[in-house]
Amino acid sequence: MLADLLSTVFERRMRVARTPEDDARSTQELADALVGADGEISGQRLGRLILERFAGMSDDEKREFFGHLAHAMNFDPEAVRSALEDYESNPGRATYARFARAAEPKRQELMRRLNRVPHATGALVDMRADLLRLGEDDPALGALDLDIQHLFSSWFNRGFLVLRPISWESPAHILEKIIAYEAVHAIQSWDDLRRRLEPTDRRCFAFFHPAMPDEPLIFVEVALTQGVPGSIQTLLSEDREGIVAQEADTAVFYSISNCQAGLAKISFGNSLIKQVAADLSLELPGLKTFVTLSPIPGLTAWTAERGLAIDDDPVRVQALAAYYLLEVKRPNGKPRDPVAHFHLGNGAILHRVHAGADLSEKGIAQSAGAMVNYLYDLAAVSQNHEGFATTGAIAASPEVQAASTAAKKHFLEDAGP
Amino acid sequence: MLADLLSTVFERRMRVARTPEDDARSTQELADALVGADGEISGQRLGRLILERFAGMSDDEKREFFGHLAHAMNFDPEAVRSALEDYESNPGRATYARFARAAEPKRQELMRRLNRVPHATGALVDMRADLLRLGEDDPALGALDLDIQHLFSSWFNRGFLVLRPISWESPAHILEKIIAYEAVHAIQSWDDLRRRLEPTDRRCFAFFHPAMPDEPLIFVEVALTQGVPGSIQTLLSEDREGIVAQEADTAVFYSISNCQAGLAKISFGNSLIKQVAADLSLELPGLKTFVTLSPIPGLTAWTAERGLAIDDDPVRVQALAAYYLLEVKRPNGKPRDPVAHFHLGNGAILHRVHAGADLSEKGIAQSAGAMVNYLYDLAAVSQNHEGFATTGAIAASPEVQAASTAAKKHFLEDAGP
Amino acid sequence: MLADLLSTVFERRMRVARTPEDDARSTQELADALVGADGEISGQRLGRLILERFAGMSDDEKREFFGHLAHAMNFDPEAVRSALEDYESNPGRATYARFARAAEPKRQELMRRLNRVPHATGALVDMRADLLRLGEDDPALGALDLDIQHLFSSWFNRGFLVLRPISWESPAHILEKIIAYEAVHAIQSWDDLRRRLEPTDRRCFAFFHPAMPDEPLIFVEVALTQGVPGSIQTLLSEDREGIVAQEADTAVFYSISNCQAGLAKISFGNSLIKQVAADLSLELPGLKTFVTLSPIPGLTAWTAERGLAIDDDPVRVQALAAYYLLEVKRPNGKPRDPVAHFHLGNGAILHRVHAGADLSEKGIAQSAGAMVNYLYDLAAVSQNHEGFATTGAIAASPEVQAASTAAKKHFLEDAGP
Amino acid sequence: MLADLLSTVFERRMRVARTPEDDARSTQELADALVGADGEISGQRLGRLILERFAGMSDDEKREFFGHLAHAMNFDPEAVRSALEDYESNPGRATYARFARAAEPKRQELMRRLNRVPHATGALVDMRADLLRLGEDDPALGALDLDIQHLFSSWFNRGFLVLRPISWESPAHILEKIIAYEAVHAIQSWDDLRRRLEPTDRRCFAFFHPAMPDEPLIFVEVALTQGVPGSIQTLLSEDREGIVAQEADTAVFYSISNCQAGLAKISFGNSLIKQVAADLSLELPGLKTFVTLSPIPGLTAWTAERGLAIDDDPVRVQALAAYYLLEVKRPNGKPRDPVAHFHLGNGAILHRVHAGADLSEKGIAQSAGAMVNYLYDLAAVSQNHEGFATTGAIAASPEVQAASTAAKKHFLEDAGP
Repeated sequence: MLADLLSTVFERRMRVARTPEDDARSTQELADALVGADGEISGQRLGRLILERFAGMSDDEKREFFGHLAHAMNFDPEAVRSALEDYESNPGRATYARFARAAEPKRQELMRRLNRVPHATGALVDMRADLLRLGEDDPALGALDLDIQHLFSSWFNRGFLVLRPISWESPAHILEKIIAYEAVHAIQSWDDLRRRLEPTDRRCFAFFHPAMPDEPLIFVEVALTQGVPGSIQTLLSEDREGIVAQEADTAVFYSISNCQAGLAKISFGNSLIKQVAADLSLELPGLKTFVTLSPIPGLTAWTAERGLAIDDDPVRVQALAAYYLLEVKRPNGKPRDPVAHFHLGNGAILHRVHAGADLSEKGIAQSAGAMVNYLYDLAAVSQNHEGFATTGAIAASPEVQAASTAAKKHFLEDAGP
Repeated sequence: MLADLLSTVFERRMRVARTPEDDARSTQELADALVGADGEISGQRLGRLILERFAGMSDDEKREFFGHLAHAMNFDPEAVRSALEDYESNPGRATYARFARAAEPKRQELMRRLNRVPHATGALVDMRADLLRLGEDDPALGALDLDIQHLFSSWFNRGFLVLRPISWESPAHILEKIIAYEAVHAIQSWDDLRRRLEPTDRRCFAFFHPAMPDEPLIFVEVALTQGVPGSIQTLLSEDREGIVAQEADTAVFYSISNCQAGLAKISFGNSLIKQVAADLSLELPGLKTFVTLSPIPGLTAWTAERGLAIDDDPVRVQALAAYYLLEVKRPNGKPRDPVAHFHLGNGAILHRVHAGADLSEKGIAQSAGAMVNYLYDLAAVSQNHEGFATTGAIAASPEVQAASTAAKKHFLEDAGP
Repeated sequence: MLADLLSTVFERRMRVARTPEDDARSTQELADALVGADGEISGQRLGRLILERFAGMSDDEKREFFGHLAHAMNFDPEAVRSALEDYESNPGRATYARFARAAEPKRQELMRRLNRVPHATGALVDMRADLLRLGEDDPALGALDLDIQHLFSSWFNRGFLVLRPISWESPAHILEKIIAYEAVHAIQSWDDLRRRLEPTDRRCFAFFHPAMPDEPLIFVEVALTQGVPGSIQTLLSEDREGIVAQEADTAVFYSISNCQAGLAKISFGNSLIKQVAADLSLELPGLKTFVTLSPIPGLTAWTAERGLAIDDDPVRVQALAAYYLLEVKRPNGKPRDPVAHFHLGNGAILHRVHAGADLSEKGIAQSAGAMVNYLYDLAAVSQNHEGFATTGAIAASPEVQAASTAAKKHFLEDAGP
Repeated sequence: MLADLLSTVFERRMRVARTPEDDARSTQELADALVGADGEISGQRLGRLILERFAGMSDDEKREFFGHLAHAMNFDPEAVRSALEDYESNPGRATYARFARAAEPKRQELMRRLNRVPHATGALVDMRADLLRLGEDDPALGALDLDIQHLFSSWFNRGFLVLRPISWESPAHILEKIIAYEAVHAIQSWDDLRRRLEPTDRRCFAFFHPAMPDEPLIFVEVALTQGVPGSIQTLLSEDREGIVAQEADTAVFYSISNCQAGLAKISFGNSLIKQVAADLSLELPGLKTFVTLSPIPGLTAWTAERGLAIDDDPVRVQALAAYYLLEVKRPNGKPRDPVAHFHLGNGAILHRVHAGADLSEKGIAQSAGAMVNYLYDLAAVSQNHEGFATTGAIAASPEVQAASTAAKKHFLEDAGP
C-alpha cells in the first residue's frame, strides 16, 4: 500500500499518464516499444500499461498477445546465423554480445523489463498461468513458455526463496490463501484451519519470494507424532488427543500443495521438505523419523486398466499398491505414479503401504483407500536420489518388497504388468 | 547465523562431506559435473565446494578457472547451427528447447546452480568483481562477463530491490559498510557518520537485494536545506546549524556511492534518486526542489589538455566548468564528464555551477574546486531524458547557458573546443 | 512459546518443583509466604504455584481465597496508628518507610510479586474479573478491589499502552479475539470480519499492553466516509460501494469495545479515540470530521418509565432522543445515558440524532431504532471537557437543541422530566 | 519520531499550548493542579509543561520543586487518623477508599499522571537520578524517594521487562549507550565494542522496558570459553584466538553494568544473569558451567585497614582475597564486599580466586590484581540463596575454603578479623 502511494505521488509529480486509455498504440505495439525503449523512465510507464491492459483482456485477446510474443518477438534465424559466423571468424566481446542478443528472443527482454514495474512479478506469474491454460496445444506458445520458464528458473532460484512458518499467529490474508490452495486434504473452514495450525504438534511451512511477500508459493503441512501413522482420518480427527511437540519422534508431511499455477515445473517441493526436516530436527532433537503420508493417485486407474479387482481385502489392496508403486513404470523407466515419482526422485524410501488409510470419497476412488509413507532418511537421501536418477532403482523397505512379491505370486495371475 | 546453523545440522544429518579436500576432482571438473548433475542434492554439495575453493584461490588459479568457463563452457557453434536448422525445418517446443540449450553457454546454467547454495549470491557478485579485475583485456573473459552481466540483470532486476532508509538506528554492521563504501566524500569516523545520519535534516537511503540482506548495493546521502547549497564543506561542516526537516524546501543528494564492484554496469542509481525523491516528497510536502551537489571529476584534466589556465578567478572557473559540462562531448555525442553523463541521462537539468565549492585536496585537483547542481524537476525528467537519449540535447538553466557562452567569448580564445 | 520453552528448560535445570501438588501448604499459606519470601527465586516458584492453583479453583474456593486477601492481608489499624505517631514525632526516611509499609495492605505487595511470574499480568487481569463477578456485594471484597484497581492504574498507565492498527493482515489469533470481543455490532463470521477490515475505507485500532501482547485491551472500528452517516445498517451493508480512503472527509467511530472484564474502570476509551483521530488525520489530511455513530442504550427504558409512547414517527423519536440525551440526568447531574456520559465527558459534541438508524432487534428494543453522532471537534474538545467536568454543561449542535425544545413543547405534555 | 509527529499534529489540531511560557502559574502550582485536574485532557498539557520546565531547571530550582513534593504533597496525618477511625467504625468500600487516599501522599498520584505524557517514563527516571543526587542528606527528600522507588518497583516489575540480545547487528544508537554505560571494563572505541560483540564466542544481553525502548536498563557481557578463565586481560585480549560457540563449555559473565542512575535499588541483575543462563543453555546445550569473572572492589581497602601487606606473592594475595570474601562481614552479617554480596545473595558459589587476574591500574588499586569467579550452579542456586538469606551461610568451593584457612594460619597473624 505504501508502495502504491509512493508510485501515485511520484507519478502525480512526474505527470506521467497512468490509465491504459491514453496511449493510442495497441498492446503489441507497446510491447515492441518497451523492448526498444531506452532507459527506465518511459519503460516503467509502458510496462505498467501493458500489465494493466493484459489484466483486462479476454482469453482471445490474451491468445493474440501471446501469439505476438511467440512469433513477432521470436529470434530471427538469419540474424543468429550471421552473428554466429561473425563470432566464429572473430571471437571477442563485441561479436559475442551480438550473437547473444541475436540468439535470445526479444520476448525475454520484454519479460525482464515488465518485471521492473512494482508488483509485476506476481502479475507475470499469473500471465504464465494464462499461457499454460490457453497455449497447451500450440507449439509456438510452447516455445514461448520455455522462455518464460527459463526466466522464472532464474528469478525463483532456490537461493532467493524464503522459508516461513505458517501458524495461527500468521496474518489472516496469508491464511486465507492456505485455505484456498490446500489441494490434497481440503480445509473446510477457519476452525478446520486452526486445528491444523494451532496445536503444538502441528506445523506448516511455506516458501515465499521476496517480490511476492503475500503469496505462498508452496506449503507443507506437518503432524508431529509418536510412531508412523497409517490413516489420514485419524491424523486429522477433530477429537484426537494431541501430544506435546517435544515428545514426538516422527514428523509426518501429510500434505504438500503448490499455490501458483504460473510456477508449474519450477520445482521447490524437494527443497521444501528437506529444509523443513532440517528446521524441525534443530528445534526438536527428539525427532528421528521424517516421513510422508501420501496418496496413491493412480492406483485404481491402473488396476482398472489391468482388469484387476481391488476390493476391500486389506492384504490384497496393500500388495497391489506395493506392486504398483514399485514395479509399474512409465516408458522412461520412472514410476507411473506421480507422487511416487516426486518423492522417490527426491531420494525418499518407499516405506510402508496402508490399506484403509484414506476413507474419503476421493481416497476410495483413486486408491481404494490405500496410502503410503515415503521415508526421508537424511543419511541415505543423496545416495537414493543418485540411484534413482541414474538407474531408476527404487529404495523400498523389505516389508514393501515382500508385499509386492506377494502381489506377483497371488494377485496378478490374471495379467502381466 | 540461523541459516548457517541450519545448514550445519542438516549436513551433519545428511553426512555430506563439507570440506573441499574430500573431492579428488579439480574445480573445473566439479563445475562440469555441477552442470550435468541431475537434481538439487548433489548440486548443493558441488556448488558449495566450488564456491569454497574459489574463495581460497590465488589470482592465477582464478584466471585459470575463468578460462575454463570462457572456453570449455562456452556454447558450441556447430551445435547451435545444427539445432537452428532442426528448428527451422520443424519449429516446435522440442526443437526450440534444443536450440535454446545450444545457444546458451553452459556457464550460465553453472552460475544459476551455484546460486542455489545458501548465501551464494554475494559470493557470485564477488566472483564477478574478480573477473572484472583480472579479465580486462581478455576478449574471451569479456564474453564470459557479458553472460554474467546478463544473469545479474535478471537477478538484480529493479523489481527485486528493496529501498531502506539508513539511520543512526540502523544496525552497526550495515553502518560500518556505509563508512567503508562512501566513495565521494569520505566518512572519517563513527562520529562523522553520526553527523550525516542523526540530525533530522540528514537522510540516507540504500538499495538492498533480499538475498544479500547485509550488503547495501548503492546508497545516497541527502541533506535537507533551505535553498540550494553551493559548497560541500559548508554542507558538512561540524558546527553547522541544523534545521527541522519540516522547514526544508530542498533535498540535496550530495553523495551517491556504489558498494559492489561486482555489480558494475548493473545500474540502480537512476531508480534510487527517483525513488528517494518520491519517498521524501511524500513525507515532507514542503520539499519543492530536488537537486544534487556533484563533483566535476574531469574538469581540470580537460583544461590541461586544452592548455587552458584555470586559476582561482571564480568567474573564469564557473564559465569554464559550464562550458565543459555543456559542450565537451565524447565521440558518441554524450557528455565527456561521467557524472554529468549519469545525471543528464537520468533527465536532470544542469542547474548551477559553483566555484570554490569543494576546497578539499581532491576537489581542487579534479575541478579547481568547482561543483555543480543537477536539478531533478520531476515534471520534466521524462522529457529531458527522452531528448538526451534521442538527440543528445542537454537541459540547462539560462544561468549555466550564459556562463558557457561567456566562456566561449572570453576564456577559450587560446584554443577551440 | 519461546518464553515457555525458556522457563521449562530453566526450571528443569534448576530442578524447581513445578506442579501444585508438591507443596503441602494451602494457597492462602503460599500467599502469606510469598509476601514474606526474601528474594526472587523462591518467589517465582511460589507465585507460579499460586496462579496455577487459582486457575483451577471453583468459585467457592476463589471466594475463600479473596476473603483471605481481604481480611488476613488487610492493613492493621493499630500498626498504622503506631507508625503514624512515630513518624509525627520523628519524621524521617525510616519512620516514613515504616508508615508506608503499615498503611499499605500486604495484598498489594502480593499482587506485585505475583506479577513477576512470566505471563502473570493477563492471569491477574482475569483474577480481577473473577473478583468483580464474585464480590459484588461484599464490602471487604470491594475494598480489595480498590487495591487491585489502584495497582492496575499504575500498570496500565496510558504511557505504557501501545496503539496498533488491526487489519486483515493481522495475526489470526488476534483477529479471533476481535470477533469474540466486539460488543456493539456483533461480527458474524470471518467474512463479516474481513468486510470490516480489508476495504481501504475501513480501519480498526486497538490498545495493547506490552506484557499481554496477544490480548487487545480495547478496540475501535472506523469507517471512512463522505459525509456523516445516519444508519448503521447502511454503513455495514454487505453490498455497499466503498470509496478510496483518500477521498473520505469523515471518520466514523462506529463501535468501541472493551475486551477485558478484569480492566473495568481502568479507562482507555478516551485516549483511544483521540489517538486514532490524530493518527488518521496525519495519514489522511482530507479528513475534516471525526464523529461517532453511537447507540442510545437507555432511551426506551426511560420513555417507558415516563409513560411516553415512542412509536415509529421519526420526528417524535428524534425529539425524544435529543431531549433524553440533553436533559435527562443522574442524581449527580451527569447524563443518564452511559454512552452519552462517556463521549460528552471526553469533550465531544452532541451532533445529530437519527431515527431509523439501527433497525436490528437490539436497536429497536433499546432506542426505537434511534442512534446519535457525537462529534470530536479537536479544537473544542478540551474546552467542552472542562465545561462538562465543572458545570455539567453539554455541548450540542443547534439542531439537537431544537429537537429537544420541540420535545418539551410537543411530546412531553404527559409528564415532567 | 513518529510518536513526536503524532503529538505535534494532534496538538496543532487541538490548539493546545505547548511552550512552558504560556502558563503563568509556577511549576509547583502546576503540580498541584495536575493532581486535581479532572480527566486526561488538561492533564496531558499540565504534565508536559511540568516535565519540560523541570528539564530546564537549575539544581536549586529542582531542590525547591522536590521540596514542594516532599512537604506540601505529603500525606496529612490528621486526615489519615480521621479516615482510619471512620474505617474502623464502619469498614466498607467507601471508608476504605477514603483511608487509602489519605494514607497515600498526593505526589504518588502526581507521578502517575506525569507518566501519562508520551515518553515521560524516561524523564521520570532522570528526575529520580536528580533527586538521589540532590537529596542525599535530607530526610524529607529521602521519604519522597521511597515513594518514587515504590512506584518504580511497580512500573519496572520484572514481568514488564524484555530481554534483548545486543550484537554487532544492533542499532548504533543502542550500541553507543553500551559504550557509554559500561562501568566495569571500559570500552575504548567502536572497534573495541566490535571485539566484544561480533565474535561467535561473545554475547551481550540487556533488559529494556517497553516505555523506554531506546534505553538499556542493565546489560551483561558474556564470553563463551573452554574452561573457567582466570584473567580479564587474557579474556579481552585483542589478539586472542576465538572459538566456535558450539565448542564452548563455559559461559563467563565478565561485566554487568547498570545504565540508569534513576533506577538505583530497583534491582534486575539477579534476573538478568539467570535469564541469560537459561537462554544460552537452550541455544548451546554444550554449556555446562555458568560463572562470573568478577572484581573484588574492597580488598585492598580492607587489607589497608587491617594493616596487612598485600604484595605480589600470588599465594598470599589469593589467600587474603578468599578470607576477605568468605569471612569479612558487615554488621548485619552479610559480606562486606558489594559484588560478593550481590552474587552470593543470588545463590552463586564462591568458586575460585585468581591472583594477577586484572592488571589494569584499577584492578591493582582495588584488589592487588585479584579477581574471583562466582559459579551459578543452577541446580543449587535456590538452596544457596535460601541459606544465605536465612543464616548468612556462604557456599564456597573447597579450594576457596582452603585458601581462606591458609590465610588464617599464615597471613593474619598480625591481627584478628
